[in-house]
Amino acid sequence: MSYKNFPMVSNVIFGRGSFGQINDVLAPKRLSSKAPFIFLIDDVFKSNSWLTSRISLAYDDKIIYVSSAEEPKTSQVDKLVEDIILMTKEKPSGIIGIGGGTLLDLAKAVAIMLTNEGPAKDYQGWDLVKNPAIYHVGIPTISGTGAEVSRTTVLTGPERKLGINSDYTPFDQVILDSELTKGVPTDQWFYTGMDCYIHCVESLTGTYLNKFSETFGDMAIELCRDIYLSDKLSEEEAQESLMMASWHGGMSIVYSQVGVAHALSYGLSYLLGTKHGIGNCIVFDHLEEFYPDGVKEFKEMKARHGIELPKGICADLTEEQFNIMIDVALSLEPLWENALGKNWKKVMTREKVKSLYQKM
Amino acid sequence: MSYKNFPMVSNVIFGRGSFGQINDVLAPKRLSSKAPFIFLIDDVFKSNSWLTSRISLAYDDKIIYVSSAEEPKTSQVDKLVEDIILMTKEKPSGIIGIGGGTLLDLAKAVAIMLTNEGPAKDYQGWDLVKNPAIYHVGIPTISGTGAEVSRTTVLTGPERKLGINSDYTPFDQVILDSELTKGVPTDQWFYTGMDCYIHCVESLTGTYLNKFSETFGDMAIELCRDIYLSDKLSEEEAQESLMMASWHGGMSIVYSQVGVAHALSYGLSYLLGTKHGIGNCIVFDHLEEFYPDGVKEFKEMKARHGIELPKGICADLTEEQFNIMIDVALSLEPLWENALGKNWKKVMTREKVKSLYQKM
Repeated sequence: MSYKNFPMVSNVIFGRGSFGQINDVLAPKRLSSKAPFIFLIDDVFKSNSWLTSRISLAYDDKIIYVSSAEEPKTSQVDKLVEDIILMTKEKPSGIIGIGGGTLLDLAKAVAIMLTNEGPAKDYQGWDLVKNPAIYHVGIPTISGTGAEVSRTTVLTGPERKLGINSDYTPFDQVILDSELTKGVPTDQWFYTGMDCYIHCVESLTGTYLNKFSETFGDMAIELCRDIYLSDKLSEEEAQESLMMASWHGGMSIVYSQVGVAHALSYGLSYLLGTKHGIGNCIVFDHLEEFYPDGVKEFKEMKARHGIELPKGICADLTEEQFNIMIDVALSLEPLWENALGKNWKKVMTREKVKSLYQKM
Repeated sequence: MSYKNFPMVSNVIFGRGSFGQINDVLAPKRLSSKAPFIFLIDDVFKSNSWLTSRISLAYDDKIIYVSSAEEPKTSQVDKLVEDIILMTKEKPSGIIGIGGGTLLDLAKAVAIMLTNEGPAKDYQGWDLVKNPAIYHVGIPTISGTGAEVSRTTVLTGPERKLGINSDYTPFDQVILDSELTKGVPTDQWFYTGMDCYIHCVESLTGTYLNKFSETFGDMAIELCRDIYLSDKLSEEEAQESLMMASWHGGMSIVYSQVGVAHALSYGLSYLLGTKHGIGNCIVFDHLEEFYPDGVKEFKEMKARHGIELPKGICADLTEEQFNIMIDVALSLEPLWENALGKNWKKVMTREKVKSLYQKM
């Protein structure tokens, strides 16, 4: 029996307005005047001076705005790395990702790929990264994915949607400033928060669960209930609670795994480009069979916030397209084993996966 | 407003039996054949081959058994550092602390003092450490103190009982193997577990509390209730739960502070050498005025486990001795401010402190 040796985020700042400390945090990390800080920022903040004016650019520091309209891709990482190499005289002093899961995952991947040769797709998998990443900082502006604490950066590659899982992936620094999440639209707030809720349900009901994961998962679920099913929190408190729920939810899957919802959602995302948060919601809504209590509570949350999920997204798919999704989903063996046990293949046949997709 | 940038433990392994991975964890950290690993182990394990036989000593690696009968002292740290310098050809590759809070704090302090000049007492305070510590590993064999995650190592010096608080203090590696806690005597299990319970009550009711601390504190308190007030856990589950409670409790005071119980307990410890766990219990038992709900629940836990606390420990003290304790306790300003607010000095006069000590 061998247990994982989990690398944690090295430093964390928590507090409303703590984003204002960004320049003080970065200053001692500058390697030279030729080694800039590169800020990867969600392009929804492009003309948002409330956020960007607090970043002091010096020397060759650059902001690169990135759209999060699509899930992050290995080719996108390769392009960003190439651009950064061309525009900088020396390796950057640091990569700072500011945004949701997409931007955080891109920042982690770019920091890794600046010190590791070849294309990003070659590193999708477990422990394939050879060299330490460049110093990288994660600053979430939406809560729920857990990308701020995780040991992975999930990318869609030419062959699969799979994370770069490595000891070098976690951020060196995270800044948790709930004020940055204040402008998130309701539907996005719901989908991303439900990513946390859903992966906690998958973790807590999974066969891989241990006490470490359980305590973090329980806390995250309790916080989700406070946020999505009660009126007891002020708006600020709810933003802070969701930021902590995301953190604890991410910690919960360190030692366990996600499950059926994530596996099927990856298939949707690979074929149809469905974003992760909404994809999880679309899938989870049909998983009473596997997560009866969780799905019941999810539906209550959905109703309470008037969320309408897309329907019939698989209605017009060809057999070939179904097969692509089924291949992607079934390739995620640890997720199925966690959800259904060692004999999962007996339950989760190709026909069964297809029948689930057909409901969506 | 400036928020703390908290350094976290870099790596953590959780799992029953995970102590068996110690040699694999250390191997890549060996700097040279002349740079040994030094194991500081609680001397209760001296003839316990179940534990010690799993440590593979190589080259000049050494085990030093240390008594935890007394609270750790700055002079003890200085002596250990001197011994290690004399017995090793090069600076050690790592310091591994195996034991309770005393051993963990000693390991952290020794790792720091091997790379920082002068006596340990010069570093008692906040952010006085200049050089990074030697790689250090914490392996708790009793749960509750939170020393495995904290940014401090609390030492009794010639002038005060105060921690070496620094970014270099936290462990580089922690191994959480609940099996190591299986032989802890009931009274010690209670006192150390109550350290966790008490610092969570102090954190959760304090003026410094934020959502980060609150979520960790809530989780730890819930776990303490499961362990000390219910029958729902098996022995193994209770050991695992207490290990996680200790972790979360330690994380809870990252952003907040302890309070009245810890401040008074430090006075007892400084003058009378009272160990931290039992000292907190002795003090907390008389703090209904400050923590009514917490003290009520604590008394229930105490009764349920048939714990009898010493009484009259201050009965024969001289005025001078009371003054020493009062000085130590009142010097811990952040603790009082957290507990009672900015105007704490109006409430907590020397007479008031004395009257509290006289109850004990």
